[in-house]
Amino acid sequence: AIKRLILNSATQLLPQSKYFHSICSKVLDFHYPHQLKEGLEGFSLELPDQPDNLEQLLVDCRDTLKYGVKTGHPRFFNQLSTGLDIIGLAGEWLTSTANTNMFTYEISPVFILMEEVVLRKMHSIIGWPEEDGDGIFCPGGTMSNLYSVLLARFHLFPVVKTHGMSAIPRLALFTSAHSHYSIKKSAAVLGIGSENVIVVRCDERGKMISSELNSSIETAKSKGLVPFYVNATAGTTVYGAFDPLNEIADICKHHGLWMHVDAAWGGGLLLSNKHRVKLQGIERAHSVTWNPHKMMGVPLQCSTILVKKKGLLQECNQLCAEYLFQPDKHYDVSYDTGDKSIQCGRHVDVFKLWLMWKAKPEHSNVCFWYLPKRLQSILPSPERDRELHMVAPKIKTKMMEEGFTMIGYQPLEDKVNFFRCVFSNPATQREDVDFLIDEIVRLGCEL
Amino acid sequence: AIKRLILNSATQLLPQSKYFHSICSKVLDFHYPHQLKEGLEGFSLELPDQPDNLEQLLVDCRDTLKYGVKTGHPRFFNQLSTGLDIIGLAGEWLTSTANTNMFTYEISPVFILMEEVVLRKMHSIIGWPEEDGDGIFCPGGTMSNLYSVLLARFHLFPVVKTHGMSAIPRLALFTSAHSHYSIKKSAAVLGIGSENVIVVRCDERGKMISSELNSSIETAKSKGLVPFYVNATAGTTVYGAFDPLNEIADICKHHGLWMHVDAAWGGGLLLSNKHRVKLQGIERAHSVTWNPHKMMGVPLQCSTILVKKKGLLQECNQLCAEYLFQPDKHYDVSYDTGDKSIQCGRHVDVFKLWLMWKAKPEHSNVCFWYLPKRLQSILPSPERDRELHMVAPKIKTKMMEEGFTMIGYQPLEDKVNFFRCVFSNPATQREDVDFLIDEIVRLGCEL
Repeated sequence: AIKRLILNSATQLLPQSKYFHSICSKVLDFHYPHQLKEGLEGFSLELPDQPDNLEQLLVDCRDTLKYGVKTGHPRFFNQLSTGLDIIGLAGEWLTSTANTNMFTYEISPVFILMEEVVLRKMHSIIGWPEEDGDGIFCPGGTMSNLYSVLLARFHLFPVVKTHGMSAIPRLALFTSAHSHYSIKKSAAVLGIGSENVIVVRCDERGKMISSELNSSIETAKSKGLVPFYVNATAGTTVYGAFDPLNEIADICKHHGLWMHVDAAWGGGLLLSNKHRVKLQGIERAHSVTWNPHKMMGVPLQCSTILVKKKGLLQECNQLCAEYLFQPDKHYDVSYDTGDKSIQCGRHVDVFKLWLMWKAKPEHSNVCFWYLPKRLQSILPSPERDRELHMVAPKIKTKMMEEGFTMIGYQPLEDKVNFFRCVFSNPATQREDVDFLIDEIVRLGCEL
Repeated sequence: AIKRLILNSATQLLPQSKYFHSICSKVLDFHYPHQLKEGLEGFSLELPDQPDNLEQLLVDCRDTLKYGVKTGHPRFFNQLSTGLDIIGLAGEWLTSTANTNMFTYEISPVFILMEEVVLRKMHSIIGWPEEDGDGIFCPGGTMSNLYSVLLARFHLFPVVKTHGMSAIPRLALFTSAHSHYSIKKSAAVLGIGSENVIVVRCDERGKMISSELNSSIETAKSKGLVPFYVNATAGTTVYGAFDPLNEIADICKHHGLWMHVDAAWGGGLLLSNKHRVKLQGIERAHSVTWNPHKMMGVPLQCSTILVKKKGLLQECNQLCAEYLFQPDKHYDVSYDTGDKSIQCGRHVDVFKLWLMWKAKPEHSNVCFWYLPKRLQSILPSPERDRELHMVAPKIKTKMMEEGFTMIGYQPLEDKVNFFRCVFSNPATQREDVDFLIDEIVRLGCEL
């Protein structure tokens, strides 16, 4: 019966065949939290006191998929991670079955070596010399960025590991106004303080203005802060903008600062001969965040922190707990990567990427406002902005309630709510984008 | 062809049928790193320049399982996480297929509500009043423990979030000599410094001596440090010992300190009427780490941080990035849990647990030395200890090279290398344990 459960689930889940190629199907069958909590057509989220039978569990599995969001649907434009790669899915299923941990070579011999192979490949694509390069897979890009700040701080002040921030001067780090909020979050978590993250202005396309970076560094110094780290973004979350990496690298070099490139979104372009020019200068970075679960379409999660200097991860994070990392093992214990991480055990995120990479060694953000008829005749003005700001949420509400397509919206700096269309789902065709636009017009024209 | 690949893999992977019930099979087919890197019988880890075909990928999948460790094998005693629960596996496969993120209700409506249901259940099992209780699933117990230190610091000194450690006094935290190294690691990462973690002595069974805790706190205060946090362990990594929670809670109350219970390993006992007495006093904790992927046998990873005070996680970690957490959504945005975490996107770890819990609403460490014949006649002495220290690594080496069973070893404080037998694999029978003992004798008697 259990075997049947799994095989039944497998067949059902497969290429999510019921909707995968059927663009008529909905992206989501939306319900409000209270509706789902009350239980829909017998689908109860509550935990019973008595065990349910396998048939009921199978019904639960079906309902879980039914009321969820079909992130692989060709009309899902909502997130930077979209699409469902079938090879990657096979890799993830095998990973679950192997049910082991990226902790030591002892319990993950194959996956540990695969991680080394894949990271080395990524180093070479970045353009680091062969003798350089280290890294680790992390649970998401925010953690990768946190690692970069942690490493930069330790690199400059190794004493911080044992004696804490009270033993070192007040630090300052720099990131652009359009960068991901994880830099601020990292500063808060690491005890640096989010207010010591200096936000550098961007141009109207969302790129960091490098002369502003330089003057921000000078100002921080004059206030007695110690600048140590700059985050440059290659593919911002909203506009998909690329900061000028070479200009930023020059400034970092001049001031002796750690240069990090957050290429969580844009890293995938390094694989394109045509587009990798956008990341020119990335080879000068001390560390890089690159999430294959975004532009490369690997199933969630698959995120890396890549570090130029070998050994630094280990030095920064190791505590050499003998009861976990026995030094008297019979193989080269440098393969026991657990002590390099801040996590101890780590989920195996490498296999799906390795398998996909073997299968296919070869996207952009479009942001726009929709102006309902009523607003098309009004000239740009604070009044129009106030009205326009409410248009996207209203359209999104109707869109989610109907469930035929999904797209994200947000405000940014002085720009009121606008849509961001993400192109990274390989299932999406031109007709699907046309459908999206038609839907927005249909839902919004009367607003 | 792709469908066939997945179904083939699924059938092969299934209950890892080839070895699952066959105790004659090996736990691992051990190879040294250089052997795996050179490529075994055509199994190459290198990434090709040209795409491989599906048949080759299927062979790779088979080889990946072949050269890996069978953590579900009844004779795998090596780790705290062992066994392969088939319902949990089905849950993990569905999770991979859904391929979404624990970020907002928008993209994970069902999983977000399931998380709430499961966390609430865990709160009630701990014994917190109904109006209390918050929490989040984390990538591993080390991250859960890091959350606890982060929350305790913010609770005492909210200014640390924006202004960093330089705005607050020097902190001290307390944990036992047998506790997990993640407390020290958290102090290093958070900028508190690992040396400000005061290690409290344990009795000979590995339990924290509460009078020692009290005097350590007094000593730290007299040195001008500010004690703020105590970690009590419910199920230590090596001995499986339980600290005296009520005594520790009294001391924390007296000094006004945050009490955390690291029940990563022992939390599962809360489900046992007979054994939950070991965790008496856990309801007095401010936060609890509980890893269902350990004693409860949920596939990796499945780890939680449970927090008594509602709202603290959000307050501590939120940055309210409008472009990610739009405040003008059409549903209750308190369900957008992304800003509660330090991670932004999170892997969906709840579903497998939810499904297992529905399927079965209902284990210990044994540590020992093996004395080869030669050492049996020698009385305990530093000389015998020196010899004995080398026995377990030698046996383990032979054991891994042969691959029929696996068990961990480590030294601890003044005790030289000893074996730790973990009983948490539901597939293990009495004969398997007898087999393990016989193997140790066979491999070790001549040492």
